[in-house]
Amino acid sequence: MLSTMMDDQLSLATLLRYASTFVGDSTVSTWTGDGVRTMTYREVGADSARLANALTDLGIAEGDRVGTFMWNNNEHFLAYIAIPAMGAVLHALNIRLSAEQLIFVADHAEDQVVLVDGSLLPMFAQYLPHLKTVRHVIVVNGDVAALSAPEGVTVHDYAELLAKYPAEYDFPVLDERTASSMCYTSGTTGDPKGVVYSHRSNWLHAMQATTPSSMGITNDDTMLAIVPLFHANAWGLPYAALLSGANMLMPDRFLQPVPLLEIMAAVKPTFAAAVPTIWGGVLAALNASPQDITHLRSVVVGGAAAPPAMMKAFDEKHGVQVIHAWGMTETSPLGSVAQPPQGVTGEAAWAYRVTQGRFPAGVRARLVGDDGKVVPNDGNSLGEVEVRGPWITGSYYSPDGAEVDPSKFDDGWLRTGDVGKISPDGYLTLVDRSKDVIKSGGEWISSVDLENAVMGHPAVAEAAVIGIPDEKWDERPLVAIVVAEGATVAPEELREFLADRFAKWQLPEYWTFIAEVPKTSVGKFDKKRLRAQHADGELDVTVVG
Amino acid sequence: MLSTMMDDQLSLATLLRYASTFVGDSTVSTWTGDGVRTMTYREVGADSARLANALTDLGIAEGDRVGTFMWNNNEHFLAYIAIPAMGAVLHALNIRLSAEQLIFVADHAEDQVVLVDGSLLPMFAQYLPHLKTVRHVIVVNGDVAALSAPEGVTVHDYAELLAKYPAEYDFPVLDERTASSMCYTSGTTGDPKGVVYSHRSNWLHAMQATTPSSMGITNDDTMLAIVPLFHANAWGLPYAALLSGANMLMPDRFLQPVPLLEIMAAVKPTFAAAVPTIWGGVLAALNASPQDITHLRSVVVGGAAAPPAMMKAFDEKHGVQVIHAWGMTETSPLGSVAQPPQGVTGEAAWAYRVTQGRFPAGVRARLVGDDGKVVPNDGNSLGEVEVRGPWITGSYYSPDGAEVDPSKFDDGWLRTGDVGKISPDGYLTLVDRSKDVIKSGGEWISSVDLENAVMGHPAVAEAAVIGIPDEKWDERPLVAIVVAEGATVAPEELREFLADRFAKWQLPEYWTFIAEVPKTSVGKFDKKRLRAQHADGELDVTVVG
Repeated sequence: MLSTMMDDQLSLATLLRYASTFVGDSTVSTWTGDGVRTMTYREVGADSARLANALTDLGIAEGDRVGTFMWNNNEHFLAYIAIPAMGAVLHALNIRLSAEQLIFVADHAEDQVVLVDGSLLPMFAQYLPHLKTVRHVIVVNGDVAALSAPEGVTVHDYAELLAKYPAEYDFPVLDERTASSMCYTSGTTGDPKGVVYSHRSNWLHAMQATTPSSMGITNDDTMLAIVPLFHANAWGLPYAALLSGANMLMPDRFLQPVPLLEIMAAVKPTFAAAVPTIWGGVLAALNASPQDITHLRSVVVGGAAAPPAMMKAFDEKHGVQVIHAWGMTETSPLGSVAQPPQGVTGEAAWAYRVTQGRFPAGVRARLVGDDGKVVPNDGNSLGEVEVRGPWITGSYYSPDGAEVDPSKFDDGWLRTGDVGKISPDGYLTLVDRSKDVIKSGGEWISSVDLENAVMGHPAVAEAAVIGIPDEKWDERPLVAIVVAEGATVAPEELREFLADRFAKWQLPEYWTFIAEVPKTSVGKFDKKRLRAQHADGELDVTVVG
Repeated sequence: MLSTMMDDQLSLATLLRYASTFVGDSTVSTWTGDGVRTMTYREVGADSARLANALTDLGIAEGDRVGTFMWNNNEHFLAYIAIPAMGAVLHALNIRLSAEQLIFVADHAEDQVVLVDGSLLPMFAQYLPHLKTVRHVIVVNGDVAALSAPEGVTVHDYAELLAKYPAEYDFPVLDERTASSMCYTSGTTGDPKGVVYSHRSNWLHAMQATTPSSMGITNDDTMLAIVPLFHANAWGLPYAALLSGANMLMPDRFLQPVPLLEIMAAVKPTFAAAVPTIWGGVLAALNASPQDITHLRSVVVGGAAAPPAMMKAFDEKHGVQVIHAWGMTETSPLGSVAQPPQGVTGEAAWAYRVTQGRFPAGVRARLVGDDGKVVPNDGNSLGEVEVRGPWITGSYYSPDGAEVDPSKFDDGWLRTGDVGKISPDGYLTLVDRSKDVIKSGGEWISSVDLENAVMGHPAVAEAAVIGIPDEKWDERPLVAIVVAEGATVAPEELREFLADRFAKWQLPEYWTFIAEVPKTSVGKFDKKRLRAQHADGELDVTVVG
C-alpha cells in the first residue's frame, strides 16, 4: 500500500529559498583581522542567484563540478549552498593537500570552474597549469592580474562577475538523490578517494545536526566554524545553519589561538567546532591570558579523540561544555555525538562524555569481529565498527564505473577501519585502527591501549605497539620502546607494570628498544614503517614472560 | 550525477530497533487513576515482536490495515510502532466519531483486525456487527467474554495472545514510501477523508518534532500526550519519543483537568501537548487549587487558536511556556510552530507567540488569492494558505483509485482551507476559513475579525458575519447580532464602533438582529445555516452607511 504523502524532494534549492526568506535576517560574518564583514541570508540568496547565473553562463550545467580553494568566509559559505542549489556539484578542495594530491583530486573530480581566495592565489598558481579540466578561475577578494592563466583558462573577478547578473535564478527542485557535493578522503595510503553527497544526505544530516541529541543548533546560535569547509563536508555546519537560521561566524585565515580568542571576544559565538589540537591551543592561550568564553554554550570536538583533561579544563575552569563527536568524510560526517543519556549529569556524565559518543537513530552501527561475524554491543567485545544510514557513503566515486576499494564495504555497510566497543545504550569507544589492532588467537588487543599504558611508566618516553606474526596465535604484540633521557628499564619491569591493567593473554612478550618511533608527515606513529623494519630484521627483539 | 550515498530507507523498523536497544531504558507509562504502569522501550520492542508474530498468524500481511480503538496507553503506543514496523498499516480509530462515521471509516479503510481497550468494549460492541471487513478483535486489558462476536469474527485476549509468541520478529526495512498508518479527517461536511502516512513522512516529521525550532523533544523529556493518539497522527509524538528516547506519559481515560494535574504532580512531565480547551480547563483547576507545574519546560497547544490571555496566564502565573502550533491531519500534523525568532525574548516575543507559528524549512507555504495568484508574504496580504512538503498529503485515500476531493489540491500544493497572512519572516496568522472569508471586490475581509471586533461592543452578546451576494462587489459582509440581555443598539452605532479598526471599504453596511447564532453539534457558529436563512429571506436586513 502506497501512502498519499507528496513525493516532495529534500532538495537544497528549497533550503536556500527558505533561508533567504523566512530566516533572511540571519547572517554569515567573516573575521577581517580587526572586525567582521557581514551578509544576511537574504543577501546570500541574492548573491547565490547571481553566482548561479554566472556559472550557467560559464557553461556549468547540472552535475558539473565546481571547485573551491578557499578559507572559511562568506563567499565560501555562499558557494556551499549556491552551487548545489543550481544543480552543480560543489568540490571544496583541501588547500592543505600536497601538490600531487591536489592535482589528482581536481582532475579526478573533473572540476570545470574553481573559486579561489585572493590570499591563496600564489599557492593555486602553482597547481593551475597542471589541472586538466579547469576552464575558468574566479578570484574572490583578490587581484585577478596576479594570476597568469594558462591557455584555455579564463580568470574572472568574483565581485565584477556577480555584478553583471540579476539576483533571481530559478533554482531547480531536483531528485534528492542527485549529487550535491563531493569531498575526498585524505587517506595516508593510496590515492584520495571521493565521496559524493546528495541533496537528501545533506538535508537529513542538517536535520540531525539541529536535534538536541546531536549539536542542537538553533535559530539563536552563532556558530564559529573553525573546522575548514573543505574538511569532511564542513561537519555539516553550513546546511545546519541555513536550516535552523543560526548565524555563521567564519575565521577566514585567522586560525591561531590568539586571533580565535579575539574573534570570540568580539562576536561572542554560542557554538564552535574544531579538532582537538585547535582546542588545546585555545586552552593554552586562555591560561596565558584569561578571557570569559561562557558565551559558548557548547563546543564540538571531532576528527580525533580529545584528551579528557582538556575537556575537563574547559568545563571546570571556563564553564564551557566540550562535546566529543565521531565521524569521517564517509559519514557526512556526523556518526556519534557524546551527549550523556537521560538523567545523567555532572560528574557521572563524564563516563559518557569521554566516549566517541552515541549513535542516533539515523545511523545504524554494528561491530564485526575478525571472522566477519557480528559481535554484541555489550560494552566489552571489540570489533570493527560498521555503519549504515542515509548520510553514509555506499561506495567511492568512480569516473569510469570501476569499483574503488570495495573492501571498505560489507554487504551494505561501511567498514570504518576503526576498532571499538559499543555499550548496550549505544555509546562507541574506539580502541584502535583495524590495521593496527593485534589479532591474537581470535581475540583482539588494542595497540593504542598498550601504548598508552606503557607510556605511563616514568622510564618510557614513547612506545609504539605493532602486531607481529606468530605461528600459534596468528599475531602477538611487539612493544617498541623509546627510553626516557637518562633512564633505564628492563622489559620484565614494563611487563610487570602492565600486569594489573591487562588480562594475562594480552601481556606482550616481545619487546624492542628503539631510538625514536618513525612518524608520518602529520606526526602520527608510522606503524607501517615499524612493521617493515621488523620484517626486515632491523629490530632487536627480546622475549620475556 | 548520482551521489555515492547509501540508498538507506527511513523505515520505522529501524526506529523500533533503535528505540528498543540504544534508548531501551526509556519508558512509556500509563496513569491508572492512582499511579502508573510502566514499560521500558526494551519491553516495547519485545512485545512489538510478539504482537507482530500474533498479527502475522492472524493473516495480517504487508499493507493490511489494523485498527485501534483505544485510549492513550502503553499498548496503544506499542501498536503505533509495532504495526507499521511489521509492514502493516495502523488505523487509529477515533472513538469520538458518530456510529455512522466510525463504521464508514473502518469499512473504507478495510480494517482486518482491531485492538480495543476493555473499557471501550460496550461502545465497540455496538459497531462490531456492522463492520464488514473486521475478522479479529483483540481485547486489551478487558473481559473477552463481554464481547459477543458476530459470525466470522474471532475475539482474542491481548495478553494471552502475546504470551504465545516469541519476543523476536524480523521487522522488514521497507521502501520508505510504503504506507505506515492512516488517519481520517473529521470534516463537518461530507464523508471523512483518509490520509495515508508513509514510513518516510513519519520519520522526517519525527526529526522535525525533535528540532528546537519545533517541539525540541530530547532524551531528557517526559512527554504527557493528552492529545489522543487517534487524532491527527498523534501530533507525531510517539515517533518523536522513539527517535529521541524521551519518555512517554499516557493519561489513558483520565482527561479531566483534576486527574491531569494529579498525573503531573505524580510524574512531573517536562512537556505536554493538548488542544486549547484542555489547557483552559487545567488553568481553571490550577486557579482553584494551586500546584507547581514548573516541571513543564513547555506545553504545545494546537488544533485551534489558543486565547492569548490563557497563554499569558500560564506564562506569568505558572512559569510555563505555552507554544502555539498549527497543522492538520493532512500535514502529519506539524505545519508551523510559534517559537519566537532569533534574539526576541520576553514581552517582545508575544507578537510572535500568538501567531499560528513559523514554517520550518521542510514545509513550503504560500498564500493564494481569489484569482488563483500567489499573494506576497508581506504580513498584510490575505490568501488561502497552501503548503507542500514531504510530510504533507498529496491526495486522499481512495480504495478504487478514483480521485477524492481533488479541489483540495492545487498543482502539487495542499489547499488548507485556512485564510491568513504570512510575515516576511515566515509567521502565519490565520484570519478565517476560506469558505467564510468575504470576497469583496477582489479583496478579502475576515469574518472572524469583524465578529471579534463587534463582540467587543457592550450591547452585543454574540455576532456572526457571513458574506452575502452583491452585484457590484461580488460579496459584502452581513453582520448578525444577538443583543445582550436588556441592551439596545442601532446598526449605525455598531458601524461607527468598527470605524477605527477597519478600512472604510471593509465596514459592513448589512446588519440583522437575531435571537441566537445557529451552532453546529460541536458548538461552532453554523454559518452554512445562517447563509441558508438569508437566502430563504428569513433574515430582516437593515442597510446603513
